[in-house]
Amino acid sequence: MNETLNTIFEHRSIRKFKDEKISKEVLNLILKAACSGSTLGNMQLFSIIVTEDKEMMRKAAPAHFNQPIATNAPLMLTFCADTHRFNKYCEYRGAETTAYCNLQSYQWAVTDAIIAAQNACVAAESLGLGFCWLGTITYNCNDFIKLYQLPENVMPVACISFGYPDENPPLTDKLPVEAMVHHEVYEDYNEVKINKLYKEKEEHPNTIALLKENNLENLAKIFTERRYVKADNEHFAEVLAEALRQQKFMK
Amino acid sequence: MNETLNTIFEHRSIRKFKDEKISKEVLNLILKAACSGSTLGNMQLFSIIVTEDKEMMRKAAPAHFNQPIATNAPLMLTFCADTHRFNKYCEYRGAETTAYCNLQSYQWAVTDAIIAAQNACVAAESLGLGFCWLGTITYNCNDFIKLYQLPENVMPVACISFGYPDENPPLTDKLPVEAMVHHEVYEDYNEVKINKLYKEKEEHPNTIALLKENNLENLAKIFTERRYVKADNEHFAEVLAEALRQQKFMK
Repeated sequence: MNETLNTIFEHRSIRKFKDEKISKEVLNLILKAACSGSTLGNMQLFSIIVTEDKEMMRKAAPAHFNQPIATNAPLMLTFCADTHRFNKYCEYRGAETTAYCNLQSYQWAVTDAIIAAQNACVAAESLGLGFCWLGTITYNCNDFIKLYQLPENVMPVACISFGYPDENPPLTDKLPVEAMVHHEVYEDYNEVKINKLYKEKEEHPNTIALLKENNLENLAKIFTERRYVKADNEHFAEVLAEALRQQKFMK
Repeated sequence: MNETLNTIFEHRSIRKFKDEKISKEVLNLILKAACSGSTLGNMQLFSIIVTEDKEMMRKAAPAHFNQPIATNAPLMLTFCADTHRFNKYCEYRGAETTAYCNLQSYQWAVTDAIIAAQNACVAAESLGLGFCWLGTITYNCNDFIKLYQLPENVMPVACISFGYPDENPPLTDKLPVEAMVHHEVYEDYNEVKINKLYKEKEEHPNTIALLKENNLENLAKIFTERRYVKADNEHFAEVLAEALRQQKFMK
């Protein structure tokens, strides 16, 4: 064990923050960490929008479905998959300007952006900050593209609120590590295996409370009937595909 | 500064490894770190294929364009965007089984998988290991789907070789942090700004050597004419789109 592992193992999402600003020094360390990760061919295909202006947070809130976490933190970082900067570099050097306007390049850029985002998160926690990811960034992505004035070949893919924690929640109930791990080839799941892997989670007091509150018989239905319903997901899949076409990552 | 920041800031890719195995204990710490990150709605939409069998590495090598790094490390981890396990869970609980078979769900799962992958990387470096990402995993993704026997709704998105470093390369020449950072809105790049941001990189001895070796006039052309050529990228964008359709993430 070491301090870094401890930071990673002790991660929990924080949704309540102290009324305390994040200093320029701390912000700069987080941004430096974000820019220190691996990146495809050293092309650094990502950008970071720093939001500190509360007015900008309020403007973004409806597209985040007005979650409190969209406005209650002193800092938000929005990570974008970005081949635009590299395309501009190519333009000014007389090189091909449309080599990175396709779905494969988007996949590279998403990877670069999420690596950067996770590095920022680990760095932030090592500095005593807490954070929470807003999955909503890829839902109404067209709204965020407008708000942040993103040019073609830039797509918002991660949004994280940061601040000093004003709560100390327990660790999230997760599946056992073996649920995610396969050796050499993918070992498919049957009913016995699924039952075993989800047992602890299904018996967790949080789950029991959730079922009662929602009047539903199992955790799977909490997801499919309340949280992430098929029709909504398919609608936001269409919005995402349309944004990818608009931003010239897809035809 | 702290130990975690130091680990992150000192990152460099390692492509030469000592002939030294990675113990079960160390592997388990890395896997635990991978599974400790944020994940959309706590759904944990990722899987990890552990490759230690050299025969499996040799089988995968052609699809990685036979890069030495595809076979010369004691350990490879392939991270997959995976909604299949959750869909199976839904199936065995009588819930909707096709809510997470769309592009939006793929985006969530990619994010979960890359968060897990980057956590594994930071953990590995804190334990004295080195690693290198193989971007090729999303190129010939159809080959990897077959080799690792990935069912529908599972896509390989990151592949990383790990081992004890047998080289000590300098830090990679990166763009200054300000190149990636925007305040409140995206501040577009003009020629003056691009020239300033790329100056240090263009004057770097590595770049000078590369231009001479390739007989090309600038770094942009090294990318567009040698490393990541438009026609190849567009071909692999098609392969990726076809795999996404085959794996039921896109129509």
